[in-house]
Amino acid sequence: MKKIKIGLIGWGTVGTGVVKLLRSNSALISRRLGAQLVISRIADLDLKRDRGVKVDSSILTRKPSLILDDPDIDIVIELTGDPSLSGEFILRALQNGKQVVTANKALLAESGKDLFRAAEENNRRIFFEASVGGGIPIIKIIREGLAANKISSILGIINGTTNYILSRMTEEGISLGDALKEAQINGFAEKDPSLDLDGIDSAHKLVLLSSLAFGGWADLNKVSVEGINKLSAEDITYTSGLGFTIKLLAIGKQTDAGADLRVHPTLVSHKHLLSSVNGVFNAVYVKGNYGEQQIFQGKGAGEGPTASAVAADLMEAGGNILSGDYTVPGRISVGTNLKLAPIGKIACRHYIRIPAVDQPGVLAKIANILGARKISIASVIQSGRRKRGIVPVILMTHKAGEEEMGKALKLINQLAAVKSKPVRIRVED
Amino acid sequence: MKKIKIGLIGWGTVGTGVVKLLRSNSALISRRLGAQLVISRIADLDLKRDRGVKVDSSILTRKPSLILDDPDIDIVIELTGDPSLSGEFILRALQNGKQVVTANKALLAESGKDLFRAAEENNRRIFFEASVGGGIPIIKIIREGLAANKISSILGIINGTTNYILSRMTEEGISLGDALKEAQINGFAEKDPSLDLDGIDSAHKLVLLSSLAFGGWADLNKVSVEGINKLSAEDITYTSGLGFTIKLLAIGKQTDAGADLRVHPTLVSHKHLLSSVNGVFNAVYVKGNYGEQQIFQGKGAGEGPTASAVAADLMEAGGNILSGDYTVPGRISVGTNLKLAPIGKIACRHYIRIPAVDQPGVLAKIANILGARKISIASVIQSGRRKRGIVPVILMTHKAGEEEMGKALKLINQLAAVKSKPVRIRVED
Repeated sequence: MKKIKIGLIGWGTVGTGVVKLLRSNSALISRRLGAQLVISRIADLDLKRDRGVKVDSSILTRKPSLILDDPDIDIVIELTGDPSLSGEFILRALQNGKQVVTANKALLAESGKDLFRAAEENNRRIFFEASVGGGIPIIKIIREGLAANKISSILGIINGTTNYILSRMTEEGISLGDALKEAQINGFAEKDPSLDLDGIDSAHKLVLLSSLAFGGWADLNKVSVEGINKLSAEDITYTSGLGFTIKLLAIGKQTDAGADLRVHPTLVSHKHLLSSVNGVFNAVYVKGNYGEQQIFQGKGAGEGPTASAVAADLMEAGGNILSGDYTVPGRISVGTNLKLAPIGKIACRHYIRIPAVDQPGVLAKIANILGARKISIASVIQSGRRKRGIVPVILMTHKAGEEEMGKALKLINQLAAVKSKPVRIRVED
Repeated sequence: MKKIKIGLIGWGTVGTGVVKLLRSNSALISRRLGAQLVISRIADLDLKRDRGVKVDSSILTRKPSLILDDPDIDIVIELTGDPSLSGEFILRALQNGKQVVTANKALLAESGKDLFRAAEENNRRIFFEASVGGGIPIIKIIREGLAANKISSILGIINGTTNYILSRMTEEGISLGDALKEAQINGFAEKDPSLDLDGIDSAHKLVLLSSLAFGGWADLNKVSVEGINKLSAEDITYTSGLGFTIKLLAIGKQTDAGADLRVHPTLVSHKHLLSSVNGVFNAVYVKGNYGEQQIFQGKGAGEGPTASAVAADLMEAGGNILSGDYTVPGRISVGTNLKLAPIGKIACRHYIRIPAVDQPGVLAKIANILGARKISIASVIQSGRRKRGIVPVILMTHKAGEEEMGKALKLINQLAAVKSKPVRIRVED
């Protein structure tokens, strides 16, 4: 049976999972693929750490070039996560005629356009199933399974760290800080969790999903991003009482004005399928003009699920090598830029919490500001919970434009009775 | 741009959806595929009915042979649903070098082994994404997305008709008969709904999913099948009170004794992801040894979703034609039979309702019979609802073997105080 040789660059958690998977499922993989997948070299700076898996020391190296320039290696798995080097590694692998498998969403979101073009020019492919949604084969689903659909919207819970934190805040009523500490202890958050909490990681993944779904390359810099950093336990309690769960959603919608791409904390109704996706689970909701609504859910991270995605890519990359056909089904259009809708044009319902001094006339002033911007109020909740003379005014608005809402919030913030910045959370209907 | 010519045999609801989709999404499909998909002939016995879509009458015919034997046609879509003819059509199409796309699960479950072998021999493929789960690309997900996993279990809500009926019975407390009538009026159930209600349709689909997931051909005749025909509103009420929803599940599990394949009404905890899959939605839960738990949900039937699946198949079939490579990724192993576990060896928790005369000592007798078979009782519910002197004795058991339970139920049925056959529903934990 033919052997397909693989070089692994970056031997961390995911890389270890891949080594384990290829070993424990090798019979099954060979039978399904018609060839053996063999890890013939592993490059990492740290070759001593015990990773719980035995590897012949002769295949270990500190030099990625021994993989990238080895003509016997057919597929390179790039799992360094190092933004300064990984792009170079991928380019060199492609130029040397190798297939590439990576999980590096940051790199692809930032430099994917050049990298995918380089793959095309070299008649090889970059596989990146592991970069979004952990074990969920969401890239394949959108690219091939739903290939015949005009996709109108994608809603994704695609960051396990923040979803774990929000779930714990919701279940236990604890603060963001406490939930983050818990996540760090359990290995669900990095020491420096800012990429996750700021929404940047979700934005990286959204760029990839949108570029596949909407037929043009999405510019990361134009995605509107807001993290969960400012969410308080208070807002989770109030919104839950109103029938909503707060999720950090990555939203991609095709509108007449262009694609609307954003990441922000979002209220989803308790009835929405996404509201019950909890903990480290990820889920992606996709709506197509024929396939209608679909939702795909699974573990969004971890050694096993991510290795499952990498290995599926390896099998497809290997299949290409066996057939000699490197055509990309439903390829990302790197030649055209996705037209993006200006964020000011977006309209949705809003939850607003305004920390105001408990005195007569405050609500009237707020209502006047909103009314002048044609933002109508659907309901007002007086919580009665007073903290140092401050009573939060809680409002749900009807559909209101992003631009008008921004201006209104600015004016409300300037009111003498308003003691700190109003909190605004958008609703996804 | 190259044109790929398609012949459609069977112009019903799904066929009409395909014609509409290829028309409305043609630009997008051509861009993604790099070729045009053109329906060049349609065969049906009824060419007069208004299907809400205009088609040039010159491409219509009553003779499938004008498609099957036309050397210009590249892909045949077989949607007749006629079991006596469809197998012949598919064979002839393959022998004439055409790719085949079908939604005919009954045919594939019964004769798939021969048909897939014929495809292999003719170096062409049979695509069948539309045969399971409507628009959900579950075939592709299992075959490719989770290809590197040893799959241990599949749990599917894969019959929209019964799921609609069960959902309505649960929501409204109505009888099976009333829910069925409602489903028929709304177009969610056939005039003769027996294939759906008896669980046979789910079994057909389970054969396909299991043959893909477990690496050997599953014999339809050995799948244990029980429909929803005997479910009463009463059982739905009682089990709901116990924290369960009743779903018709198609269950495939890999066990040490072989694959355990069955279809039956099943209690799933309200906390289980599948319990909230309602109405005509389908969902498939898959557990793999690396990808872990995943769930895929979408509309299980209807013109749009099924057309979405057929069209994705057409694009892949077309891609094969363009590249000249007809390799099947993760192909169904028609050469080996899947070893099946004897159903008697399966163990699970059970809900039992025994309609018994309200007299002292009945429960003791029942408990004795169960105890003698080493079936232990987890809880007993005395409903107090008396109907013509009959009070149901409701039991939840701990895990109990299928064989022992069968024998115990037989003995319980023979008790003088037991007035009609006990109802037994298995629990999926």
